[in-house]
Amino acid sequence: MLPEHLLRVVRLFARLPGVGEKTAQRFGLYLVSDNSGLAAELGSELVGLQHGVQPCELCGNLAERNASGRAICLICADERRSAGELCVVGKVQDLMAIERSGSYRGRYFVLGRLLSPLDGIGPEDLPVDRLIDRIRSTGAEEIILATPPSVDGEATALLLARELGPIGVRLSRIASGVPHGGDLEFADQITLGRALSGRRVMDPSG
Amino acid sequence: MLPEHLLRVVRLFARLPGVGEKTAQRFGLYLVSDNSGLAAELGSELVGLQHGVQPCELCGNLAERNASGRAICLICADERRSAGELCVVGKVQDLMAIERSGSYRGRYFVLGRLLSPLDGIGPEDLPVDRLIDRIRSTGAEEIILATPPSVDGEATALLLARELGPIGVRLSRIASGVPHGGDLEFADQITLGRALSGRRVMDPSG
Repeated sequence: MLPEHLLRVVRLFARLPGVGEKTAQRFGLYLVSDNSGLAAELGSELVGLQHGVQPCELCGNLAERNASGRAICLICADERRSAGELCVVGKVQDLMAIERSGSYRGRYFVLGRLLSPLDGIGPEDLPVDRLIDRIRSTGAEEIILATPPSVDGEATALLLARELGPIGVRLSRIASGVPHGGDLEFADQITLGRALSGRRVMDPSG
Repeated sequence: MLPEHLLRVVRLFARLPGVGEKTAQRFGLYLVSDNSGLAAELGSELVGLQHGVQPCELCGNLAERNASGRAICLICADERRSAGELCVVGKVQDLMAIERSGSYRGRYFVLGRLLSPLDGIGPEDLPVDRLIDRIRSTGAEEIILATPPSVDGEATALLLARELGPIGVRLSRIASGVPHGGDLEFADQITLGRALSGRRVMDPSG
């Protein structure tokens, strides 16, 4: 019923995460009848996307290739960021979430994956050697393990703590507990257990 | 935080209908880390989309330009479709919905818009002359007005009935009532009113 060219576009859109056939068709029909040139503009940006955007060769964050062909991300290129702390995250989205919080001014290291025996991802698949190189070259004093507080994330943090122990840096783990605005009544048992075991002394003098 | 090229892609994705900033970012990050070449493939299809897909010059359905530069849709090109009936719809999506139902084998005419005084769309903005030309050239005997049973759709159907009256074709309007599987208890007043006023005689002999 639809022209073949539009069908191809719809099938490609349907490969994006969370996009079903109906949504893909909606995108396609919108682009065909749009008058702002969005289809052509988006198309030409996408053609070069994977060549232009690469993992940062220092930390694994996304970076644009510079004139000399190297990919250094905006955070690694920023001299004002403290080199004393290195925050280890599972994926780029987690790095972005921490940046949005505005509460961290150090450097990052993106693992790209977590330990996941069910998906066949074992210790040898984690970039531990690259992480150790990165710690040595930045001279970081504290390594913040910011993998998620999930089964895979905790296992990854434990493995990294064991591997990094011998090089003599301070290791820390992000806190896990009842989230801001969260309700104790509806918190799950593990979260409440962590909130209790991770409790901190309050100083009544403020 | 994101490389400039990726930011451009995210901003363009966010212009698609129903896509917010978070979803657009998800698409962009997925495409950057995808290994199947989806970004480049989708990109090159989108670049030529608006040139390759055009409204059918006969009915307004979407069509691919053929070798001689004309845009005739698959339905208009299909000799097996009956020319005796012409179904008038508001938009291409409605035509597609009717095709999916599999209960119509005639031709179509896509108005492209409905009367909508609030949006400044008046009678002079509807392609009535093109519709009359199309009726005459196909020799259609029945015109099925399949604009939606909404305020704008009903107004459009009434206007078309008035304009088409003088040319002496049979005019019909699609039925409106309680949908298949619908519950009378939860049907709105207008739908129930239409279901009653549109009631049909039942033949007890089947």
